[in-house]
Amino acid sequence: SPASAQDGAATGAMDLGAIGMGIVIIGAGLGIGRIGGQAVEAISRQPEASGNIQTGMLIAAALIEGAAFFGLILIAFVL
Amino acid sequence: SPASAQDGAATGAMDLGAIGMGIVIIGAGLGIGRIGGQAVEAISRQPEASGNIQTGMLIAAALIEGAAFFGLILIAFVL
Amino acid sequence: SPASAQDGAATGAMDLGAIGMGIVIIGAGLGIGRIGGQAVEAISRQPEASGNIQTGMLIAAALIEGAAFFGLILIAFVL
Repeated sequence: SPASAQDGAATGAMDLGAIGMGIVIIGAGLGIGRIGGQAVEAISRQPEASGNIQTGMLIAAALIEGAAFFGLILIAFVL
Repeated sequence: SPASAQDGAATGAMDLGAIGMGIVIIGAGLGIGRIGGQAVEAISRQPEASGNIQTGMLIAAALIEGAAFFGLILIAFVL
Repeated sequence: SPASAQDGAATGAMDLGAIGMGIVIIGAGLGIGRIGGQAVEAISRQPEASGNIQTGMLIAAALIEGAAFFGLILIAFVL
């Protein structure tokens, strides 16, 4: 992050932003991975419900995606 | 966070905000991931109940999303 | 938190508030995620009971939500 980069120049403080971003992606991967995994299983069980299943999958996955992007942006530009 | 960034300039304190944000997203991912995963399974079992299932999914997921965003904002702008 | 930010300026103490907030959201995510996941399954099993299922889900999830918000606010403004 810009602020802590300047601090680092003066004091050598560790910038943990990259570690935090990695943990953000672990969370998003676990969440969207679970939804997507169960969605393809659900489609294989009821192929005629593919449309409804994909809609449900997208809504839930987009919520996680939004939170993850918001976290990444906050870490990069605000912290 | 702004406050701890200034502290860092003086003392080299670590800013753990990014780690905290990552853990927030792990929580959101686990929670919304579970709801979304079981929702797509539920839709495949009762495709005609898709509307009710998606409504229930959204209510529960929005509670987690709201708490996660609140946490991210507190970490970024208050801590 | 404001108080510990001032301490940091004097002592270099780590501000663990962000870590605590992340753990708060893990708890909320696990809890509300389980309630929401089983609620959508229950709706698919008895679609005509959707209203009752959603009411029950909301009562339980709101209890977790309330505790999580209270914890976040205490970490941000009191610690």
